Amino acid sequence: MMDIFDNINPIDFRYYGRDKKAFELLQPYLSEEAFVRHLAKVEAALTGTLADYRICPKETAAEVKKAAEKVTADAVYAEEDRIRHNIRALANEIRKKVSANAKPFVHFTATSHDIICTAEALRYKAVTENVVIPVLLELEKTLIEIAKREKNTLQIGRTHGQHAEPITFGFAMAGYVSRLGNRIQTIGCYGGNLRGKMSGAVGAYNASSLFFSDPAKFEKDVLAKLGLMPSTHSTQIVEPEYVTDYMHSLISCFGVLANLSDDMRHLQRSEIAEVGELFEANQVGSSTMPHKRNPINFENVKSMWKAFVPRMMTVYLDQISEHQRDLTNSASSRFSPEIVAALVVSAIRLNKTLKRLVVDKTNIKNNFDQNKKMIAAEPLYILLASLGHENAHEAVRKLTLESQKSGKELIVLAKNDGSLKKYFEKMNKKQMEILENPEKYKGIAVKKTEMVCEHWKKMLKI
Amino acid sequence: MMDIFDNINPIDFRYYGRDKKAFELLQPYLSEEAFVRHLAKVEAALTGTLADYRICPKETAAEVKKAAEKVTADAVYAEEDRIRHNIRALANEIRKKVSANAKPFVHFTATSHDIICTAEALRYKAVTENVVIPVLLELEKTLIEIAKREKNTLQIGRTHGQHAEPITFGFAMAGYVSRLGNRIQTIGCYGGNLRGKMSGAVGAYNASSLFFSDPAKFEKDVLAKLGLMPSTHSTQIVEPEYVTDYMHSLISCFGVLANLSDDMRHLQRSEIAEVGELFEANQVGSSTMPHKRNPINFENVKSMWKAFVPRMMTVYLDQISEHQRDLTNSASSRFSPEIVAALVVSAIRLNKTLKRLVVDKTNIKNNFDQNKKMIAAEPLYILLASLGHENAHEAVRKLTLESQKSGKELIVLAKNDGSLKKYFEKMNKKQMEILENPEKYKGIAVKKTEMVCEHWKKMLKI
Amino acid sequence: MMDIFDNINPIDFRYYGRDKKAFELLQPYLSEEAFVRHLAKVEAALTGTLADYRICPKETAAEVKKAAEKVTADAVYAEEDRIRHNIRALANEIRKKVSANAKPFVHFTATSHDIICTAEALRYKAVTENVVIPVLLELEKTLIEIAKREKNTLQIGRTHGQHAEPITFGFAMAGYVSRLGNRIQTIGCYGGNLRGKMSGAVGAYNASSLFFSDPAKFEKDVLAKLGLMPSTHSTQIVEPEYVTDYMHSLISCFGVLANLSDDMRHLQRSEIAEVGELFEANQVGSSTMPHKRNPINFENVKSMWKAFVPRMMTVYLDQISEHQRDLTNSASSRFSPEIVAALVVSAIRLNKTLKRLVVDKTNIKNNFDQNKKMIAAEPLYILLASLGHENAHEAVRKLTLESQKSGKELIVLAKNDGSLKKYFEKMNKKQMEILENPEKYKGIAVKKTEMVCEHWKKMLKI
Amino acid sequence: MMDIFDNINPIDFRYYGRDKKAFELLQPYLSEEAFVRHLAKVEAALTGTLADYRICPKETAAEVKKAAEKVTADAVYAEEDRIRHNIRALANEIRKKVSANAKPFVHFTATSHDIICTAEALRYKAVTENVVIPVLLELEKTLIEIAKREKNTLQIGRTHGQHAEPITFGFAMAGYVSRLGNRIQTIGCYGGNLRGKMSGAVGAYNASSLFFSDPAKFEKDVLAKLGLMPSTHSTQIVEPEYVTDYMHSLISCFGVLANLSDDMRHLQRSEIAEVGELFEANQVGSSTMPHKRNPINFENVKSMWKAFVPRMMTVYLDQISEHQRDLTNSASSRFSPEIVAALVVSAIRLNKTLKRLVVDKTNIKNNFDQNKKMIAAEPLYILLASLGHENAHEAVRKLTLESQKSGKELIVLAKNDGSLKKYFEKMNKKQMEILENPEKYKGIAVKKTEMVCEHWKKMLKI
Repeated sequence: MMDIFDNINPIDFRYYGRDKKAFELLQPYLSEEAFVRHLAKVEAALTGTLADYRICPKETAAEVKKAAEKVTADAVYAEEDRIRHNIRALANEIRKKVSANAKPFVHFTATSHDIICTAEALRYKAVTENVVIPVLLELEKTLIEIAKREKNTLQIGRTHGQHAEPITFGFAMAGYVSRLGNRIQTIGCYGGNLRGKMSGAVGAYNASSLFFSDPAKFEKDVLAKLGLMPSTHSTQIVEPEYVTDYMHSLISCFGVLANLSDDMRHLQRSEIAEVGELFEANQVGSSTMPHKRNPINFENVKSMWKAFVPRMMTVYLDQISEHQRDLTNSASSRFSPEIVAALVVSAIRLNKTLKRLVVDKTNIKNNFDQNKKMIAAEPLYILLASLGHENAHEAVRKLTLESQKSGKELIVLAKNDGSLKKYFEKMNKKQMEILENPEKYKGIAVKKTEMVCEHWKKMLKI
Repeated sequence: MMDIFDNINPIDFRYYGRDKKAFELLQPYLSEEAFVRHLAKVEAALTGTLADYRICPKETAAEVKKAAEKVTADAVYAEEDRIRHNIRALANEIRKKVSANAKPFVHFTATSHDIICTAEALRYKAVTENVVIPVLLELEKTLIEIAKREKNTLQIGRTHGQHAEPITFGFAMAGYVSRLGNRIQTIGCYGGNLRGKMSGAVGAYNASSLFFSDPAKFEKDVLAKLGLMPSTHSTQIVEPEYVTDYMHSLISCFGVLANLSDDMRHLQRSEIAEVGELFEANQVGSSTMPHKRNPINFENVKSMWKAFVPRMMTVYLDQISEHQRDLTNSASSRFSPEIVAALVVSAIRLNKTLKRLVVDKTNIKNNFDQNKKMIAAEPLYILLASLGHENAHEAVRKLTLESQKSGKELIVLAKNDGSLKKYFEKMNKKQMEILENPEKYKGIAVKKTEMVCEHWKKMLKI
Repeated sequence: MMDIFDNINPIDFRYYGRDKKAFELLQPYLSEEAFVRHLAKVEAALTGTLADYRICPKETAAEVKKAAEKVTADAVYAEEDRIRHNIRALANEIRKKVSANAKPFVHFTATSHDIICTAEALRYKAVTENVVIPVLLELEKTLIEIAKREKNTLQIGRTHGQHAEPITFGFAMAGYVSRLGNRIQTIGCYGGNLRGKMSGAVGAYNASSLFFSDPAKFEKDVLAKLGLMPSTHSTQIVEPEYVTDYMHSLISCFGVLANLSDDMRHLQRSEIAEVGELFEANQVGSSTMPHKRNPINFENVKSMWKAFVPRMMTVYLDQISEHQRDLTNSASSRFSPEIVAALVVSAIRLNKTLKRLVVDKTNIKNNFDQNKKMIAAEPLYILLASLGHENAHEAVRKLTLESQKSGKELIVLAKNDGSLKKYFEKMNKKQMEILENPEKYKGIAVKKTEMVCEHWKKMLKI
Repeated sequence: MMDIFDNINPIDFRYYGRDKKAFELLQPYLSEEAFVRHLAKVEAALTGTLADYRICPKETAAEVKKAAEKVTADAVYAEEDRIRHNIRALANEIRKKVSANAKPFVHFTATSHDIICTAEALRYKAVTENVVIPVLLELEKTLIEIAKREKNTLQIGRTHGQHAEPITFGFAMAGYVSRLGNRIQTIGCYGGNLRGKMSGAVGAYNASSLFFSDPAKFEKDVLAKLGLMPSTHSTQIVEPEYVTDYMHSLISCFGVLANLSDDMRHLQRSEIAEVGELFEANQVGSSTMPHKRNPINFENVKSMWKAFVPRMMTVYLDQISEHQRDLTNSASSRFSPEIVAALVVSAIRLNKTLKRLVVDKTNIKNNFDQNKKMIAAEPLYILLASLGHENAHEAVRKLTLESQKSGKELIVLAKNDGSLKKYFEKMNKKQMEILENPEKYKGIAVKKTEMVCEHWKKMLKI
C-alpha cells in the first residue's frame, strides 16, 4: 500500500493530498478514481441512449448504469495490467457486472476516445462549475470587500518602483477586482464550452452508421444526456482547441493571482510595510531568525504560477496530432488536471491570506509623505500648459532638479519663478489647492473604485 | 544606411522584408515606422477630443492632426537620442510642427502609456481586420475547396500512424476547415476587443480630472474616435489580459496550421506519397540529390510554429507588472508584432502551397488496399455484438491474429468459423455488403464533409 | 488514508506509483519520505562535524545521527501543521529523540536552506549515480547491441521524409548511441557537481563565525561528510546555476529519447513497417479495432517529453531570487524531482521496448528498392563533376526529370546521352559498379557504426 | 530599398541596428550578410582540402578562396529567388567567379548541411570568442570593482523582502561575480566545443567515399582548417546537442543578468533608495511626471530576459529531427542568432549602467538601522543554545514578540529575563559585543568578498 509520502508530486503529498478542504473539493473530479467514474458515466449514457433508440431494452441500460456506478479505478487498473488497454479494461469491468444479454451493449459502436474525450470534457466542465468558479468568486468577493473598505485610503501610486501620483489602496485593489472578474467570465465561458464526441475511431461514424440513419444526431443525444455538445468535426478525438482555450483561461487567471501576490509581497517589504500577512501565535517565521515575518503565502502563489505557466506549452504542443490521431498527446494530457488543482489551491490560499490582510495605515501615510512635495510637478506642468505655457514640461523638469539640489519645495520655487508668475495669476482656487495639497491630486480614484466594484458585482451576479 | 542583410532577424531579412506581398500587407501596421504613425494618430485623437470639449480651439486640433500625419520614425528616434524618452520625443516632434498656441495641447493630460497602449490596440485591431482575418479566410476558402473536391476520395484513416478505418481525404480536410474556422472566429473576437486607455500615469485620471468633471467619459470619447473602448480599470497600462487573449488566439491558430502541415508532409513521405507540393521547373530539391522533391513549405510552417509557440510564455510573463506598472514589459512586448507577422506569412505560404497541392489518387487507393481486408474487423465485431455475441471483440481479435498468421482473409475465416454461423445467418444484405466491401465502411464521411463546409461558410460569411 | 487513485498526478498513480521497478528505484530518492530522510542526514552530518570541532561531544553526534535515522515524513509534517515551518519541524522531531544535552546541537548555527539546499544536492547526486546513469547505460547498451547487429542491414536514408541516399539501420541507431552517450556524460558531469552550503541565513556565515575562526572551512568539512562541495558563494541558497545545468542535462537527454521514439513510430507506420513493437498475446491494440498494432510505447515516451520539456522554463525562472533570497522558488522547485522520475521511467520503457524491437528486413529491402534507381543521381553528378563536367548538377537534375516522365532508368538515359559519353569513358570499374548498384553507394556506414559504438563503449566504460 | 524603421524586430530597428557599438561588434557574425560570408568560408576550406588531397590543383583552391571572399548575401539571395535553393545558389555564385576548370570543385562531394552546420558552428564559435566572452568579462570586471569597493559597506541582508542578517553590499555583489564567472566559463566551454561536419547527405560519407579511402579523415582535415572538430556521428546534420548546450549556457547566463537587474531595481525603489542609475542632464524620466528617476536600464535587461528565456523551448524542440533529418528545424534555427545578440546588448547595457551606479550610503545605513535591534535575535538564540539552553529558539521567538508589542529592545528584555541569566553570565566579551552591536554580526562578509573576487580573477585570468 502506497503512503502519501511515497508520492513524488507536491500536489499529491502536500498541497492537495493533505489539505482537507482542497481534497474534498477536488478529489471528485481530478483524482484518477474520479476520472474512472466519469468514464463509466459516459459508458452509461451511451447505453442509455441506445435504449432510447431501441437498439437495446431499457432494462439493459439500467443494468449498465448500475454497473457503471460500481466500477472502481482499482479494478479497472488490475484488468488493464492483464490486457494492456485502459478503456477495454473499463468495458470489461462493466461487462462483468451485467447479464449476458446486456454485455454486447457496453461500449457499443464506441471507440476509446469517444469515452475519454467526453469524460474529460465532463469532468472539466463539472469542476469548473462546482469548484473553480465558486472558489474564484469567493476570492473576488474578498477583493471587492477590501477595495471598498480601502477606497479612501490614500496611497502613493508606484511606477518603476518609484513614487508617482496619488491613488488609494482600494483603487489598486479594484484593478484586481476587474482583472479577476474578467478571467472568471472567460473561465466560465470556456469551461462551459467543452465538447464531447461519439463519432468513432476516425470520426466518420463508421460503426454507428451501421445502426443509425443519422449517427450525428445519435452523438448529439448521447452527449446531451451529459450536458455536453459535440465539436463541429472530430477525428478520433475532439478538436483540441476547446481544451486549449480552457487551459489558457486558467493559466491567464493564474497570472492575475501571481501579479496580485507579487504586489502584496513587495508592499510587505521591511522598508515599505504597508500590508502584512497575519501571523499565527505558534507560527515560526524562520528556523534561525525568530523575529522574521515573511509573506510566505504570497510567495507560494507566485511560485506555483512559475511551476504552472510553462505547462501551457504542453497544451499547445498537444494541439498537434497526426492524421486522425497519434497517441503522443496521451501521457501529456494526463498532467493537465494538475493545472486546475494548482489554480484552485492557490486561489483558496490567496483568499485566506487576503481575508486576514493587515493594512498599516500609518506606514501607507508615511510613505506617501516621503515624496509628497514632488507630486505637484505633474499638475503644475499640465496647468501651466493649459494656461498657454509653450514649454511647460521642460520648465517644470528643471525646477524639479533645482528642488532636489536645493532642498527647496518645488511649489515654492515655482511661485517665485518670475517667468511663471502670469500663469499662477490665472489659476483658480481649486487648482491652487491641488498644487499645495498633493493628497487631493488623486483624480477619481474613489469613485472609480466604486464603479469597478459595482460593475463586476453585476456582471458576476454576486 | 543599414542594408537588409545587416539584419539579424529572419523575418526582417527573409520572410517579410524580401517578400513583396507580405511587406505590403504588414509594413503599415507592424513596422516601427507604422508604430510611430499609430502613436501620432492617438495624439491627434486626443487633441481632437480636447477641441470637442472646448479645451482648445478646433483649429488647434486640425493643426495637430496635420502635424501628426507628418511625423516620421526617423525624426522621433533622433529626438529620443537627445532626450532619452520615446513618447516625449514624439510629442516634441509634433510640437515642432504646430503654432505656439497649439503646443500646450499636444499630449495634454496624457501619460506615455495612454498613447502607447492605445496605439498598440489600434494597430493590432487594424492588422487583424485588414490583414490577419482576410489572409486566414483565403486559406479557409482553399481548405473548403479541397475538402469539397475530395469529399469522395476514399482514404484510409490513420491513428498511431497505423491504418484504421476508411474516411475520405475531403473529410480529413474538413477537420481543418472546422478548426481554422473556429480560430478565425476567436481571433476576430479578441482582435476586435482590444482596449485603449486615457487615464493617466497611475490610472486614476489624476491629470484629466483637473479639467473634466467626468474624465472617464472623456477617455471613452477619445478612444471612440479611434474605434476603441477603454478597459474596465487601468493603471498606467491597460489590463494585460486583452492582449494576452489576443496573442493566445494567434498562437493557437498557428497550432492548427502546424498540424495541417505535419499531416501533409507525412502524406508526402516516399512510401505514402498521397500528396505532394508542386515543384517549379527551375527549382532545386537538394544541393546534392537532384531527384529529391521535398515538402519544404509544409516543413517551413511547422518550423515557424516551433519558433513562435514559446513566445506565448513571454506574453504570460508580461501579465505581471508591479503596482501601477514596472517597465519590465516594455522591451519584451516590442517583440510581439512578430507573432502576427509570422502567422500571416505562414498562412500565405500554406495557402499558396495548398492551392497547388497534387493529390495522387492512385497512391491513395493503393495505400487503402494494402490493409483493406482487415478493415472488416471492426464492423464484424460490432455486428456480432449487436446480434447478441457476448464476447465479440475478443473473438474477432483472435481471428485477426489467425488471419495475420495464415494469410487467409479475415472475413473468410469468420464465415468458416462454426461458432459465428448463427450470427452470420441473422445479418442483412447491407451488413454483409459492408463486411465484404470495406470501402463502403466509411460512415457518413462524405455528408459530414459537406455539413462542416457549409457550417463554416455560413458562420464566416464566405 | 489516501488511496493511490486519489492522486492527481499520473506519475504518482500510474507511471511510478504502480510500477514495481520504478518505485523501488526512485522512492528512496524522489519521494517526500526520501526527502525528509535526506534532510535528516544533513542534520546528522552537521552535528557530526560539530563534534569533530569539539563544539559538542562525540556522543551527542552519535545520538543525533541515530535520531535522524528514525525521523519520518509523517511526524515532521504533523509538527509542521502545528508550527508552520518545515525545517524547524524537522529539528524539533530530532530534538524530541535526543537527550537534553544534545538538543542545543541540533541544527546548530544552520539556517533552513543550509539543510534544504544540501539535501537536495545530496539526493539528486545519489539518484543520478545510483539510478539515472545505470538506467541510461542499460539503454545505451541496448542501442549498441542493435546498432552492431544491424550494421549491415541496408536501409534507405531519409531526409524531409523522402528517400535520399543509402545507409544501414545500424548506422542510424549509432547516431542515437552517440547522442545518448554524450548526454550520459553530461548528466554524470552535472549530477556529480551539485553543491551544498552551510553558510547561514544570508550566506555570510554570520552564526557560524561566532564559533569558528574559519567558518568556510567548517562548511567544507560538513559537506565533505556527505560527498559534496560548497558553491563558491552562497546567499541563503546555493548559486542556482548548478541545479539549472543539471536539469538541462536531463531535459536535453529526454530530447534524444523523444527523437529516437519519433523515428521508431514513423518507421512503424503501416506503409513503412520496417520496425514494430512486439505485441503480447493478451494485448488489446484498440478498443474497437482488434487488428491494430500501435507503437504505444514510443508514443508514450514522446508524450512524456512533451509534458516535461516545458518544465525547464520553471527551472530558468527559478534562477531569479531577490536579494539574499525570496521564497518564490520554493513550491516550484518541489516539482523538479518529477523531471528525474519522468526521464527514468521513459528510459526504462524505451529500453524494454527496444529490447523486443521487431525489425522487418523484407520491408526494409522493399522500401529501399522503391526508389533505388534514382539513387545513382548523386554519385553520377559528383563523378561527372570530378571528371571535369562544368555543370554536372544541372545536367543530372534534368535527366532525373526525364526519367520520371518517361519511366526510363536514370542510368540508362545517362549512358545514352551523347554529351556525357566522354565522361563515362573515363570512369573506372568501381565507379561504374556503384552507379549500376545503388546498394553499394552506402559510404562507410558499416565501419562508422562500429567506430561510434567502440568510441562510446570506451568513453562510458561499458 | 528597405529602411531600418520598416523592420518589425526591435533588435534590428532599435537595440542593435541603431547602436553603433553593438552593430560593429555583432554584424560580422550575426547578420545574414555575415552568415553568407561564413558559408563561403566553409566552401573555400572544402576546396582547399581537396587541393591538399590532390583532387584538384592548388590554383583551383586559390581561385575558389578568392571567389568565396567576394560573394555577397545580395547576389546569393537573387540566385535563390531563381532556383529556390539557398546553398546551391551560393555554390552557383562562387562558380560564376571561377574558371571552367575550377567549377566542378566548388561544393564537391558536399551536401548543403555540411556547409550550413559548419558555418553555424564557425560563426557561433567566433562570436563567442571575439564578442560574447570579452563583453561578459568587461561586466565581470565592473562587478569585481564594485564588490571590492563596497566590501565594507554594511547592508542589511534581505530574505523574503524582509530584513534578515547583516551583510555588506560588496558581499552581495560578490554573489554575482561568482555566478557570472561560472557562466562565462560555461559559455566558453560550450562555445568552443561546437562541431562541424562534412559527411554528406545522410552522414555516411556516401559521396566522399567515392574519392577518399578515409573520408572521416578528410572531414576532420576540412574542419581543422576552420578550427573545428566533427561530431562523433552525424546524419545530414551535426548532433544537435552541441548547439543546445551552447544556447543553454547563454540563456542561463541571461538569468544571472536578470537576477542582478531585479535586485538593483528593487534597491532603487523610492522607500529603499540604496542605489540609483545615474541620470543624464537632458534625460526625461516620464512624459508627464518630470521628477521621476526610473531604473529603466535594469528594467530593460529584465524585460529582454523575459523575451528570450522562452526561446530555449525552440532550441529543445529542434533537438528532434526525423530520421536523417527533416527541415522543421530550418526556419526556427534562423532565429537563434538573436539569442546571442540579446545577451550581448544586455550585458553592454548592464555594464554601462553599473559603471555609473550611484550607491547611497546614507540610505543603506538608515535602512540597516531600521530593524537593527532585532538582529540580535539570531546570535542570541544560537549563543543560548551553545551554552546549553534546551529550547533557545522558542525562548527567543517569544521575546521578539514581546519586544514588538512593548517596544522594548530585545536585548534588554533578554538580559532582564531571569531564566536566561545563567547563560548571559557564561558569555564572553566578544559575544556580548555582538549582541549589543548588531553591525558587528556580519560574519566573514568582507573576507569572503575578497576571496570570491580573487578566485574568479584567477579562474578567468583577468
